[in-house]
Amino acid sequence: MTNDTFLKACLRQPTPYTPVWLMRQAGRYLPEYRAVRAKADFLTLCKTPALAAEVTIQPVDIIDVDAAIIFSDILVIPEAMGMELIVEEGKGGPRFPSPLRSSGDITKLFIPDPTDKLKFVMDALSLTRRQLNGRVPLIGFSGSPWTLASYMVEGHGSKNFRYIKELIYNEPKLAHILLDKLAKAVSLYLSAQIEAGAQAIQIFDTWGGILTQDAFEEFSLRYIKQVIAETKTNGAPIIVFCKDCGHSIEKIASTGCQVIGLDWTIDIGDAKKIVGDRVALQGNMDPTILYSKPEIIRQEVKSILEKFGKGSGHIFNLGHGILPDIPVEHAREFVRAVKEESSRYHL
Amino acid sequence: MTNDTFLKACLRQPTPYTPVWLMRQAGRYLPEYRAVRAKADFLTLCKTPALAAEVTIQPVDIIDVDAAIIFSDILVIPEAMGMELIVEEGKGGPRFPSPLRSSGDITKLFIPDPTDKLKFVMDALSLTRRQLNGRVPLIGFSGSPWTLASYMVEGHGSKNFRYIKELIYNEPKLAHILLDKLAKAVSLYLSAQIEAGAQAIQIFDTWGGILTQDAFEEFSLRYIKQVIAETKTNGAPIIVFCKDCGHSIEKIASTGCQVIGLDWTIDIGDAKKIVGDRVALQGNMDPTILYSKPEIIRQEVKSILEKFGKGSGHIFNLGHGILPDIPVEHAREFVRAVKEESSRYHL
Repeated sequence: MTNDTFLKACLRQPTPYTPVWLMRQAGRYLPEYRAVRAKADFLTLCKTPALAAEVTIQPVDIIDVDAAIIFSDILVIPEAMGMELIVEEGKGGPRFPSPLRSSGDITKLFIPDPTDKLKFVMDALSLTRRQLNGRVPLIGFSGSPWTLASYMVEGHGSKNFRYIKELIYNEPKLAHILLDKLAKAVSLYLSAQIEAGAQAIQIFDTWGGILTQDAFEEFSLRYIKQVIAETKTNGAPIIVFCKDCGHSIEKIASTGCQVIGLDWTIDIGDAKKIVGDRVALQGNMDPTILYSKPEIIRQEVKSILEKFGKGSGHIFNLGHGILPDIPVEHAREFVRAVKEESSRYHL
Repeated sequence: MTNDTFLKACLRQPTPYTPVWLMRQAGRYLPEYRAVRAKADFLTLCKTPALAAEVTIQPVDIIDVDAAIIFSDILVIPEAMGMELIVEEGKGGPRFPSPLRSSGDITKLFIPDPTDKLKFVMDALSLTRRQLNGRVPLIGFSGSPWTLASYMVEGHGSKNFRYIKELIYNEPKLAHILLDKLAKAVSLYLSAQIEAGAQAIQIFDTWGGILTQDAFEEFSLRYIKQVIAETKTNGAPIIVFCKDCGHSIEKIASTGCQVIGLDWTIDIGDAKKIVGDRVALQGNMDPTILYSKPEIIRQEVKSILEKFGKGSGHIFNLGHGILPDIPVEHAREFVRAVKEESSRYHL
């Protein structure tokens, strides 16, 4: 591998600088991505390995990140479990026209063989891995069982999450049946991704933060733990990113993951004090800072590097996905600033 | 005063049970509120003291809460400062068609005399106070300078808050000029509310949680402190509610407020350990739990009471506003459960 800084940092091994990648780095802010999307709709892009590989590698070429993350969507797994998934251009996010609303709906879901139903993801990973040819490591990913369940029960993104909350409070046993099924499906899916070429895994728990701390432990964290325990990692590090869950850093560190992803509402220095040398940390710049002037971007990068301080175990990233209207030059300056400013912390 | 449990709890004095009210308790979930709204649009309701008083008192009669909060909107103050405010039925929330986007826009804002430009609020408070006739205390409120600035710069609610973030990162000096102006306007406004009859004040910092902790301190908390210092409280307790700011409970306790409002992502037992006997705590049940069956509502009430434990200094509330499609009977059961289950903690 030409550049293994990302994998080394995941394992808290020394690197010459702090490696950096961006959540949603293969995305709309890149003209090259928009050019590919002009030829194929979103799901076709996810399901066509040659195109998925092409956009996965774009940010490695264009903004010089230290890792690639496979282009896909967290909702392909509920689709593979038997739910109809619709992504229409310019009509909000993806949605399930028939969300889960009864125990019958939940019983009907099956646990898919990922090498069959999600073969397109595995093919995209293998192809990307070959095309990357060792330049940087390739990350695979999945939504957490809780986050997938939220989408599957609500039918789409939500403000108040009425239906999934009704499920966990009124019918907790049924919620656990759904989450256990999802945990099994996700661990098979992640094992297959690693087998197909993913060298690290990120679990996205986008909606863990809508829960009370007790409910977060019972309905989200517990199933993240199960996924990690049941995934055949073959040594690939696992990153757990729970948005808006700064309250539970200590508990996330005990899930068996190697890295905790941090949003921007947590002070990375405080997080480091909490986790000690148990796990590495990834993050955590406010994505809206990339709207700012290059000198402000650099100043904020320096501030986060200083909070983390000397030593290994930090992967620089945004605290959430890069926004679609960020100027490419700002993303490039972000990556450049991390690499230039971080070397002094790695002597 | 017939029922002073709320005011006593704000000051951590003994009460026979834990007093309870609900954010947005004068709202759409009440058929009696919808009947009034059928006759008057939202802003007319805010600006007609007889109607505002009527809906303010409704939840005292209907669901038996221990405090009334004046019916109004946080955005009447930017309107009084010179901005056009539009609230159209069924077209999303309120909006400013000409948001603040330049230093000229900010310079043009004036600090209004609240007894003139916001006389309708003062009249509504005086009238409500008379009509309540000492049954329960009356709460006045304002948005925090940061939350007001966010709406004024974005023009409406936002997902990413691009423009206000650009302002604070690219032009921090200009942001401070705006926030200082707002702090002055808000403290005059709150002083006038207390003068007009408000017996407690709540400051809503709905958008404090979109910031990094450093930015929260610099752009939000600092101005909440300024508001509290400059408000003539005449002994009225001040509640500070910063949504999604569980990370800064300790700092919020040092603003000079008497009560901290908690959303549901904070464990109230942990918060109590952090603040000790410096301030009272208000909250913190997940508002979506009111969708659940009455026995679940009661169980969650008991769980929060147990976390707070014995003693005074707790005002029960939801962790955010009551949702518009909650059954009234569930709201009533919530209030009943708090009163019935809490007495054992006040022996």
